Amino acid sequence: MKLSIIIIGDEILLGRVTDTNSGLIARTFCERGWQVATIRTVGDRAADIRAAIEAALVESDLIVTTGGLGPTRDDITKGVMTDIFGGTLIFNKSVSENIDAIFADRNLKINELTRLQAMVPDSCRVIQNRLGTAPLMWFEHKEKVLIAMPGVPYETRGMLPEVARRVDARFGAGGAVLHREFTVTDISESALAERLAKYEDSLPGFVKLAYLPNPGEIVMRLDADYGTAADPDHFEKLCNGLCDAIGTNLAARGKLAPAELLLHKLRRLGYTLATAESCTGGNIAHLITTVAGCSDVYRGGVVSYCNDIKVSALEVNPATIENTGAVSEDTVRQMAEGARLRCGADCGIATSGIAGPGGAVPGKPVGTVWIAVSTPSGTTARRYHFGGDRQAVIDRASAQAIMQLATTVGEK
Amino acid sequence: MKLSIIIIGDEILLGRVTDTNSGLIARTFCERGWQVATIRTVGDRAADIRAAIEAALVESDLIVTTGGLGPTRDDITKGVMTDIFGGTLIFNKSVSENIDAIFADRNLKINELTRLQAMVPDSCRVIQNRLGTAPLMWFEHKEKVLIAMPGVPYETRGMLPEVARRVDARFGAGGAVLHREFTVTDISESALAERLAKYEDSLPGFVKLAYLPNPGEIVMRLDADYGTAADPDHFEKLCNGLCDAIGTNLAARGKLAPAELLLHKLRRLGYTLATAESCTGGNIAHLITTVAGCSDVYRGGVVSYCNDIKVSALEVNPATIENTGAVSEDTVRQMAEGARLRCGADCGIATSGIAGPGGAVPGKPVGTVWIAVSTPSGTTARRYHFGGDRQAVIDRASAQAIMQLATTVGEK
Repeated sequence: MKLSIIIIGDEILLGRVTDTNSGLIARTFCERGWQVATIRTVGDRAADIRAAIEAALVESDLIVTTGGLGPTRDDITKGVMTDIFGGTLIFNKSVSENIDAIFADRNLKINELTRLQAMVPDSCRVIQNRLGTAPLMWFEHKEKVLIAMPGVPYETRGMLPEVARRVDARFGAGGAVLHREFTVTDISESALAERLAKYEDSLPGFVKLAYLPNPGEIVMRLDADYGTAADPDHFEKLCNGLCDAIGTNLAARGKLAPAELLLHKLRRLGYTLATAESCTGGNIAHLITTVAGCSDVYRGGVVSYCNDIKVSALEVNPATIENTGAVSEDTVRQMAEGARLRCGADCGIATSGIAGPGGAVPGKPVGTVWIAVSTPSGTTARRYHFGGDRQAVIDRASAQAIMQLATTVGEK
Repeated sequence: MKLSIIIIGDEILLGRVTDTNSGLIARTFCERGWQVATIRTVGDRAADIRAAIEAALVESDLIVTTGGLGPTRDDITKGVMTDIFGGTLIFNKSVSENIDAIFADRNLKINELTRLQAMVPDSCRVIQNRLGTAPLMWFEHKEKVLIAMPGVPYETRGMLPEVARRVDARFGAGGAVLHREFTVTDISESALAERLAKYEDSLPGFVKLAYLPNPGEIVMRLDADYGTAADPDHFEKLCNGLCDAIGTNLAARGKLAPAELLLHKLRRLGYTLATAESCTGGNIAHLITTVAGCSDVYRGGVVSYCNDIKVSALEVNPATIENTGAVSEDTVRQMAEGARLRCGADCGIATSGIAGPGGAVPGKPVGTVWIAVSTPSGTTARRYHFGGDRQAVIDRASAQAIMQLATTVGEK
């Protein structure tokens, strides 16, 4: 079964806003066996929206659109939908009540434009938007389904699980092959295989279990080929059985981001964390604090962009900076240890490097980054040379620093 | 003139990687008068790539593709190109030399797959890739142009200016109407209008100058409608004339991100900056240090995620936290002043709030954020209530905090 995604909005088409909705929708449905045929981005013009929907109706069974539902453009997108799917706009009482509730909650007065959002094509089923005023719309057309979602990213993020459940109920799963990933930590591949032997023996012949070992984690992948039609309920039971068999070494259903993996490992060990960042400039702290519930592990950190803050806030010896430079093994080791000490944490991560475009010195080209991690078992440091521009160096150094601690901590 | 963008790659289509190339390409060409018709994302399948290119050739004059040029997939994308544009793959000596130089620079050994990247369709002109091994390819077909760019974001970012210059040389500009924006700071709209009166009088009738005042900045927009064919050289002269007329109040050609605007204003005033972040968790520091050359202004900061770091690293009075809570005006004011003091900076930004999903207390729902800014003229604090999930609250609070200082600093 094929899925097409259509992102509607001049702000995306003209590059003023980066689209993150399409990726989230793709990931959600891929896991359920859907094949993504294509993603299209079109502007707020009726003819373009219509052309994109008509092309998608030819190539796909399911179409998900986001955007174009704001109160100032109702006529365009909803008009296109009624042109294609029939029907007329009528007042929807439950949508109107939802708008009232949301405005009351925000202490705002409703204007006429907002009230127009309660006008909905009678050719669709409404999915109430718990997070905003624009209702989600479910259209059916010759066995094909189009779901119009709002463009605001947190509304899409928040409503997507419910949309996916309704799609499951309508189509079963999207394809005969269902697959899902699981992250496992703190166990060797062979010990895990031993533990899962009985579970594996119990699996039906059309189910495959794969071990994908990465540094610091093993990703388990379960694929079930149902032949003609997928059975999401049965597959869910197989997934639950796998989680039970993995036991306490299951870090997460799905693949974890590096920061999630690190937080999981530190939480298991009862360790706390502090950061000391120079060239990554706060990005490691940002990646960690993006994870909800990080506060039981992460205590805080220092962005020591200039050298005297390395000395005053992290107790780096000024002579070390004088003799070996700020981008050096000795400096970065002292930063990691200083972060632990000053923040009262069990573990520390530190970075010092040259993100560019300026700042290169002989023997230390742009992209040179020293990373140190410090744990109760000791401090280790490594030198890297990352390619790319400033943004790429910051991104790569941050991810590497997080993984360097995740793969080091707790090992003998 | 119309532009279509095609993003090639399973990793984008399946949502594993967020595409940022399409937005950058769209912005670059919009400024030059091109109209973006559509953006398509397709997977690494020849039939899909071909269908996307053929549809784009119908609707657009210029097509830019990114991705699908990696050494393991050469045959697919280059094969599609020769199917459409004719020609055969031949060995290109200059591409081979470029690959040698890049590998030598990185101290790596070239393998056979990489060497294959020197095989290029003889139906295209090669644009040498200074940042990677996959050459850019320029195809022409019945007055239409397709440019195949690599998918690695920093290669796209780095090569785009040269691509745009070559497109200018081939097409003139993309449309009869050219437009560009400029950011102006530290001057009132009326004083700016007075200063620009002579320049405005000298403008030909087909050129419009618009003032778009925002908090902390005035964005100037220059639009020139050349009627039949645009003249990029003439427009460039008009732009240069505007910059000269604006004088020292010109902050940048183009619209600045909040962090760029703040750094520009602080640099003008000779002020340095420190940050103290609780709920934004390092994101403000990250946004600031993403800007190249920030080190003359930004000294560093503290991510005081737990309360005792607010006390130990920022000199917040423990009694204040005890009595008013960490999310309070008094705490956030002391954080901003503590950041200035401890980091030896002229200005400080501080945030303390509840990003969610947990952590709400009576009277302080999720989304409550106190932001304080401290300058040599004093400290001010404001309370906000941001909507959305954790990520949205962090993003909005960070942008608001940066703008709060940018609009406060230096004003009487």
